[in-house]
Amino acid sequence: MTMVETLSEQRCHGGVQGFYRHVSEACGPMRFAVFLPPQAERQACPVLYFLAGLTCTEETATIKAGAQRLAAELGLALVMPDTSPRDTGFAGATGDWEFGEGAGFYLDATQAPWASRFAMRNYIVDELPALLAKRFPLDVARAGVCGHSMGGHGALTLALAYPQRYRSVSAFAPIVAPSRVPWGQKAFARYLGDDRQSWSDYDACALVERRTFPGTILIDQGEADRFLAEQLRPELFEKACAGAGQSLVLRRQPGYDHSYWFISTFIEDHLRHHAQALV
Amino acid sequence: MTMVETLSEQRCHGGVQGFYRHVSEACGPMRFAVFLPPQAERQACPVLYFLAGLTCTEETATIKAGAQRLAAELGLALVMPDTSPRDTGFAGATGDWEFGEGAGFYLDATQAPWASRFAMRNYIVDELPALLAKRFPLDVARAGVCGHSMGGHGALTLALAYPQRYRSVSAFAPIVAPSRVPWGQKAFARYLGDDRQSWSDYDACALVERRTFPGTILIDQGEADRFLAEQLRPELFEKACAGAGQSLVLRRQPGYDHSYWFISTFIEDHLRHHAQALV
Repeated sequence: MTMVETLSEQRCHGGVQGFYRHVSEACGPMRFAVFLPPQAERQACPVLYFLAGLTCTEETATIKAGAQRLAAELGLALVMPDTSPRDTGFAGATGDWEFGEGAGFYLDATQAPWASRFAMRNYIVDELPALLAKRFPLDVARAGVCGHSMGGHGALTLALAYPQRYRSVSAFAPIVAPSRVPWGQKAFARYLGDDRQSWSDYDACALVERRTFPGTILIDQGEADRFLAEQLRPELFEKACAGAGQSLVLRRQPGYDHSYWFISTFIEDHLRHHAQALV
Repeated sequence: MTMVETLSEQRCHGGVQGFYRHVSEACGPMRFAVFLPPQAERQACPVLYFLAGLTCTEETATIKAGAQRLAAELGLALVMPDTSPRDTGFAGATGDWEFGEGAGFYLDATQAPWASRFAMRNYIVDELPALLAKRFPLDVARAGVCGHSMGGHGALTLALAYPQRYRSVSAFAPIVAPSRVPWGQKAFARYLGDDRQSWSDYDACALVERRTFPGTILIDQGEADRFLAEQLRPELFEKACAGAGQSLVLRRQPGYDHSYWFISTFIEDHLRHHAQALV
């Protein structure tokens, strides 16, 4: 078990907003944020993971989503990891916002050099919860996962692939069919190689056809989102869920775009969705 | 009347979060943020100005304070200006976070070269409201003012000097006695010169002794604030208010620091304080 270094801990809504770093076995040096609600002073709290999108860090949703107020009320801890390893030194790892650092896609890369550090699925599903359970007053067996855009892809694929690990799932403007859209095709080809069969393990539309999630999936999608038609295509997931018998609430929100102004508007509905399953 | 250029407008909590720039007569090129609640589609809304602290911009409180959710519910518009003119080119205007750009102190400078651009009081009290009234569905006669640290100093001094302009006032961790603390002494000496009589027009403790504000002043102060003892000294304002008969609610919040995690925890109490006077 690696040491967790505290970067900062600050009082917030009666709880504590902290930032931490450690050396992950899967990914090397990593940062993450944890919000502990006031209830954590007395009991182990359930956990909601929030997975952020392209270019984001552990700070983005922590600062911009506005989730702490209601999380404190509900007794829900928030864990917001970084979106990839950093300072890898790999050629091509920086300089392109759609790939590499800041664009880990919540998968375990198989291609060199990425395979040696880009193991975000392993990190989020196994390593981080084990670390959290030892270091914080968290009941990681009661966990939900939410995410935005690339992180929405992360949330959906993790919940569908590991339903025993997550009791609830939701997403904002998720990438639901990475195998069929430019963001996913670009990243998967480099992280996973050309074998498209391996891509399906990381494609929410493909995964839901194999096995449904035992609970309703909540998705909010802004109708003024500039990535809607080319990269997000929620209608593909809607169709896949209908075909598979997956319970889905997909809400199309008129006027809202892809930003955290959209997320902050609806985050409380997502927190309540998760709290129903977790608290 | 100068033109207002829209930098962005995004749907948020049923209203619109916008960022704008214009060329101010008082200060030159300036930026500000406006949140219009949903009610603004039907009627002119009251305005709460939020004045930010040292180093901040029009983005800081807009992104970090988490005020939009309840403002939308209350029908309160939020106006968040930058903390000073920018790109002035004045020697000494950058490189020191306590003075110059990002540190306008909500005063009208009298000393060269600052007097030609650093006129934040004039800008906030006169020019900006007139501009807002012409450009947005705002009832600027119903206005309150809030602020943090240097911006708390701004809020208190503007409300005490112009009670006809503001129906409500509150502050987070304000500088209440700038004439007696290092931040204020450093800035006032350079913006206003050595005549300490002129400083009293910008000192909340001095102003409240001249004339009280016709309403209760709400102040939140974190007890773990590292600037508390040297720069903030709320006990000086508490004493001045008691002597002058000014109604004051000063809440000392155990464990909270000087950050926006503190502000976001208590911002809703401040919004309700202002809404009582404005809505």
